[in-house]
Amino acid sequence: MEVGIGYFGDIDRNPAQELAEQSNAVIQNIIEQSILADKLGLDVVAIGEHHREDYAVSAPHIVLAGIATVTKKIKLMSAVNVLSSSDPVALYQAYAIIQAMSGDRGEIGMGRGSFIESFPVFGYDLKDYEILFEEKFDLLRELIKNEKVTWKGEKTPELRNIGIYPRTEKEIPLWLAVGGTPSSVLRAAKHGIPLIVAIIGGQISNFKPLFDYYKHEYIKHGHPIEKMQIGVHTHTLLLKNEEEERMYFKKYAAQMDRIGKTRAWPSYKWEQFQAGMSPDGALFMGTEQQIEEKVRYVKELFGLTRFIAHMDVGAPGEEMLLNTIHAIANIKNKIVK
Amino acid sequence: MEVGIGYFGDIDRNPAQELAEQSNAVIQNIIEQSILADKLGLDVVAIGEHHREDYAVSAPHIVLAGIATVTKKIKLMSAVNVLSSSDPVALYQAYAIIQAMSGDRGEIGMGRGSFIESFPVFGYDLKDYEILFEEKFDLLRELIKNEKVTWKGEKTPELRNIGIYPRTEKEIPLWLAVGGTPSSVLRAAKHGIPLIVAIIGGQISNFKPLFDYYKHEYIKHGHPIEKMQIGVHTHTLLLKNEEEERMYFKKYAAQMDRIGKTRAWPSYKWEQFQAGMSPDGALFMGTEQQIEEKVRYVKELFGLTRFIAHMDVGAPGEEMLLNTIHAIANIKNKIVK
Repeated sequence: MEVGIGYFGDIDRNPAQELAEQSNAVIQNIIEQSILADKLGLDVVAIGEHHREDYAVSAPHIVLAGIATVTKKIKLMSAVNVLSSSDPVALYQAYAIIQAMSGDRGEIGMGRGSFIESFPVFGYDLKDYEILFEEKFDLLRELIKNEKVTWKGEKTPELRNIGIYPRTEKEIPLWLAVGGTPSSVLRAAKHGIPLIVAIIGGQISNFKPLFDYYKHEYIKHGHPIEKMQIGVHTHTLLLKNEEEERMYFKKYAAQMDRIGKTRAWPSYKWEQFQAGMSPDGALFMGTEQQIEEKVRYVKELFGLTRFIAHMDVGAPGEEMLLNTIHAIANIKNKIVK
Repeated sequence: MEVGIGYFGDIDRNPAQELAEQSNAVIQNIIEQSILADKLGLDVVAIGEHHREDYAVSAPHIVLAGIATVTKKIKLMSAVNVLSSSDPVALYQAYAIIQAMSGDRGEIGMGRGSFIESFPVFGYDLKDYEILFEEKFDLLRELIKNEKVTWKGEKTPELRNIGIYPRTEKEIPLWLAVGGTPSSVLRAAKHGIPLIVAIIGGQISNFKPLFDYYKHEYIKHGHPIEKMQIGVHTHTLLLKNEEEERMYFKKYAAQMDRIGKTRAWPSYKWEQFQAGMSPDGALFMGTEQQIEEKVRYVKELFGLTRFIAHMDVGAPGEEMLLNTIHAIANIKNKIVK
């Protein structure tokens, strides 16, 4: 199993400080910590796309390009690029250049967008949520496979035998990231595309049917079982004691409430946080041993090939992130033979 | 005066080798050589956008992002991003993240596109050549200046009080790159935007009226003369002797002929190459002393604040590029006090 770390670039907004100064520091930390993760032998750094004041990263591929040249082995994954509101040609070109700079370590995590802020930013209409993803999913795979592309879609520009450059030595790896929508799981399985599930709430065991469905459909569509890749992306943080728990709860709850405001979520409670940290809860938080047990649990339960510790929810701060990276590296060394 | 190097990422196509392998090597060389240029104290690395089999870089901002994290002082300029066929929001976001990773060293060189391959690649119609640039030029400046943007254009998506992130501590510097079109020069002067002129043919002194026009209009529009920035981007290569001259002529002529094929140029001749290397000719090629004299000449003639040695026309190869970087660094040290 591959073990990695993930970031959305959360900003713990301090109104006394300039927003730009804060987001710069967040981005610089991601670079520094990715260098450390690479040195510690972690397998992946995954970075997400957001278009809000409380997140520093709107274009994960730009940060991954910056990480590409200062790391040696770690894979550079977006988790996710919101494909629906992206230009597949520009996305292909970005990763093709990342492949050249990194020795083919880039991987595109495609999502439909849990956060929908990207749609108005790039001039898209939410009523096209489904068709935008479907068309761009097909077009991106064409661009990856073929130098010259002929394409006619409803929501994407026409291409008439156009060469798209640079080319890559290997096909750029794709992952399909899902929250829990079965039709998305089916789409990934049908095309033999690796699946990564964001587990951000509820009971872990509730996700078992989703993975089973993927495996069943993946095999049914004739893809080789030995090449199957499945992953999870979970809220993860090393909390060494109750003091850290209480301190971090405030940040985590504040971020959940900021997100929940636009989604009519009730305000986030201490009891939820505690339930999340229970053995079948969705939060991979607590001591190194607690996190390790949970990673072993999901690895066995789902048959995972990739675990991503998404660490920076609510901006826990540099020290807690660094401690978590060391803990995740230790866990990897213990679990992966 | 600032002195820098420039690349388009030319590929000397060897049909026996995979295209991807060749373009990867070209991109890796740009990264390595930018690190060297930074160490030697050069001021700028400038990278252009092309969408053809014979160029490796279709997205200069991705390469600049890769250079950002491995360099300390050198400025990271696109020369150019074809603004007309770009998404200004995506472009702003890319450079905002480059600013965070580089300590505000990124600069967007905007061009209308001398090469027009980008238009069909991104689904644009050449008949909109003028309006696309004008609208995007206005929108990009809005995005750089304001966190929340309200925008309605004819060829660009509507934005209704949308926040675009991340923000930057300073405004992202812009340059307007022109071939020789007076209306483009006027546009730059009117808005007080630095001007960079690509000199790729003809007599150097013929460009004097263009710079005079810029200065006149810049002052007329009330911009402070002490902040005026003007630059040139010229085909430059150290050719130590006649053997190197004859060898490189073949590569240069081949590239000129490849480009000329779609522009109905006559085939490139040795006499043209020789005329280009004469004291008022457009080619900054020859011995270090010859290049130095020419750099001094344009510096004085135009009152330049920036000179970019665009080195890789026709893919002269790693050794000649490295030798040129050392020569340009020497010239900088001699010329700039």
